[in-house]
Amino acid sequence: MNVKEYMNTLGQQARAASRELVKATTADKNRALLALANQLEQSSEQLKSENAKDLAQGKKNGLDAAMLDRLAITDAGIAGMAEGLRQIANLQDPIGEITDMRFLPSGIQVGKMRVPLGVVGIIYESRPNVTIDAAALCLKSGNAAILRGGSEAAFSNQALAICIKDALASVGLPETAVQVVATTDRDAVGELIAMPAFVDVIIPRGGKGLIERISEHARVPVIKHLDGICHVYIDDDANYDKAIKVTLNSKTHRYGVCNALETLLVAESQAKKVLPELATLLSEKGVELRGCEKTQAMIEVNVATEEDWATEYLAPILSIKVVSGVDEAMDHIAQYSSAHTESIVTENFSTSRRFLAEVDSSSVMVNASTRFADGFEYGLGAEIGISTDKFHARGPVGLEGLTSQKYIVLGDGHIRN
Amino acid sequence: MNVKEYMNTLGQQARAASRELVKATTADKNRALLALANQLEQSSEQLKSENAKDLAQGKKNGLDAAMLDRLAITDAGIAGMAEGLRQIANLQDPIGEITDMRFLPSGIQVGKMRVPLGVVGIIYESRPNVTIDAAALCLKSGNAAILRGGSEAAFSNQALAICIKDALASVGLPETAVQVVATTDRDAVGELIAMPAFVDVIIPRGGKGLIERISEHARVPVIKHLDGICHVYIDDDANYDKAIKVTLNSKTHRYGVCNALETLLVAESQAKKVLPELATLLSEKGVELRGCEKTQAMIEVNVATEEDWATEYLAPILSIKVVSGVDEAMDHIAQYSSAHTESIVTENFSTSRRFLAEVDSSSVMVNASTRFADGFEYGLGAEIGISTDKFHARGPVGLEGLTSQKYIVLGDGHIRN
Repeated sequence: MNVKEYMNTLGQQARAASRELVKATTADKNRALLALANQLEQSSEQLKSENAKDLAQGKKNGLDAAMLDRLAITDAGIAGMAEGLRQIANLQDPIGEITDMRFLPSGIQVGKMRVPLGVVGIIYESRPNVTIDAAALCLKSGNAAILRGGSEAAFSNQALAICIKDALASVGLPETAVQVVATTDRDAVGELIAMPAFVDVIIPRGGKGLIERISEHARVPVIKHLDGICHVYIDDDANYDKAIKVTLNSKTHRYGVCNALETLLVAESQAKKVLPELATLLSEKGVELRGCEKTQAMIEVNVATEEDWATEYLAPILSIKVVSGVDEAMDHIAQYSSAHTESIVTENFSTSRRFLAEVDSSSVMVNASTRFADGFEYGLGAEIGISTDKFHARGPVGLEGLTSQKYIVLGDGHIRN
Repeated sequence: MNVKEYMNTLGQQARAASRELVKATTADKNRALLALANQLEQSSEQLKSENAKDLAQGKKNGLDAAMLDRLAITDAGIAGMAEGLRQIANLQDPIGEITDMRFLPSGIQVGKMRVPLGVVGIIYESRPNVTIDAAALCLKSGNAAILRGGSEAAFSNQALAICIKDALASVGLPETAVQVVATTDRDAVGELIAMPAFVDVIIPRGGKGLIERISEHARVPVIKHLDGICHVYIDDDANYDKAIKVTLNSKTHRYGVCNALETLLVAESQAKKVLPELATLLSEKGVELRGCEKTQAMIEVNVATEEDWATEYLAPILSIKVVSGVDEAMDHIAQYSSAHTESIVTENFSTSRRFLAEVDSSSVMVNASTRFADGFEYGLGAEIGISTDKFHARGPVGLEGLTSQKYIVLGDGHIRN
């Protein structure tokens, strides 16, 4: 069987399984999740020994320490996956929820019912725990899943796939409800993203290059997350302490994450007050500062170029621009932001109301750190990714982002006049 | 200026206008809609004389009577457009609606705010009233619009465009909030669907060929509507009168519409009772019947081939299949339906509950005519089309389908630990 045939078979099986999953009760799905948690704990030796093969291969291939760390399956990692599964079992089942049910003048009763998307394809890189996360979120939301992990985690993912299969079978759900692609052939990805008959949506998780490549060639919708060029704007009416706290936390809490601050905008009236203190605190943390001309006149910074405003550093670097006020701040955001997360620091009610209404990003905040833009912090209970698109799902994507709605109509023999 | 440059200019202007529209109040938008209604009524002579040019050209080009009828702007048509505008002005503004606002353990307050999609491109064929409908729905939902009508309505659409511009200007909204493409060059469509920087979504309205072509080449999301192969299933536990009424209305209320019945499924236990009566009534209406083998044994019908099950007739033809029960009915629907609208006729609570949960179509009905699948019948107040996709909008698309949501976060200097 060549790759095309193999992927088509997975697709057909997934589509068939998705029809079974629609019938699965909440209890069925939860039992499968709990069975998988137990299965992982019971299979820890097996998982670690398969993972050791990937780690050995990774070392041979020269993966750096950080990558090997992400690849490793440890006892703590297994406990974390099991805990995650039990949490997802505890979340409310989104499927079947009926909302907006009402009688219309014709006498029919119309509402919306929440339904799975169908078959979800997930393409990710090294971390094997994504296999379990993704399987669990798709299962709970009634979607069949086709998971394609990185080739560097091939042994680990196949070992996890066996646990998933066993757990599904143990509760009578189709084993093909979650399928882990068994070939490391790169063409498998190309096939997976081009089977609209079998796959309803693709979720790529990984670097920007991977996501752009997939978006470019996908023949089905993609829930994607590109850059996170996030801004904090310190307004004329900002509270000094909040401005310092929010800026510092947004930039330095973690550097390599999409919701970290990359460009600080400061109202001219505040700049002389807050910039010196911020420069001291950020320099202590080892953050390199790059500033516009006005910033350069106030504190010691490197020169920020046009390119800096459009860069997601994912590193201890911060670009700073002094602006005339909220209008210039919002103009800058409209031009350079990746529409991920922006926060204003202000005590002014009307300014905050404008910022909330007019800034077109997936998360817009007042007096809060951009680091809060996260499915868990938002109370979604789980997160399959963050969408920077406006279509379908936007911002942190939990179970609801993996669903759609259909209209349901109840009548008593009603006909249209 | 070549077509590419021209469309790029429209795109840039639309993007800029969309930022202004986000700031527009509900009152502003409603005043523009009411001003446009008045403008149309005051410009009726101008509209009819420009329309006459299109009609003359259409006759010369050999358009048939039905097409000329759709193209014509009459006094009644103008009154209808004005009435539609006043209705849309009366609808609740979806923009800015905040839902699910709650405090999280960290102390931040998180909710969702409904926002416009941004810039909507609409591509349609002859009927000039779509120009007004589409302009009104986009405006009310805070979206800038680029409208590309059929070349056969070019004079009419430009006359309508002037009314729209005047109405926008009269209330101080940007005239570029709604732009009607002024060139009939076919390349304009190709450009419009391939400007992700300026256009957020494309809505094609027209024949299947147009929609498939656009979906194939679009570089932005498309809200689309392909086939409407709708089913009625007369269950074992159907009420006889309701079965007859719902089937008849679904098939014969109108033939050329997407929510018309195309395939009737009948439980074997009911077939002998209902088919003879239905055959008589449908034949009286001039409906051609095509049946499976079992149907052929019960009533006089032509032979239904495999192709019939997969055909949207949009004509007085009905294919009929006798099935063993609800499972075979749902299997048939899963295989052949276009996932538009399906209805079950049954008095059985459990069967209806299964049908509602398991049938994966944009509208699923119990004891109601498929003809109800319509934005107005569902109380949406307006409809820009029906989506047969599961992604973003599904089923009749009203104002809400033209919006997205963003997360908003309120804090008091909150930082993440």
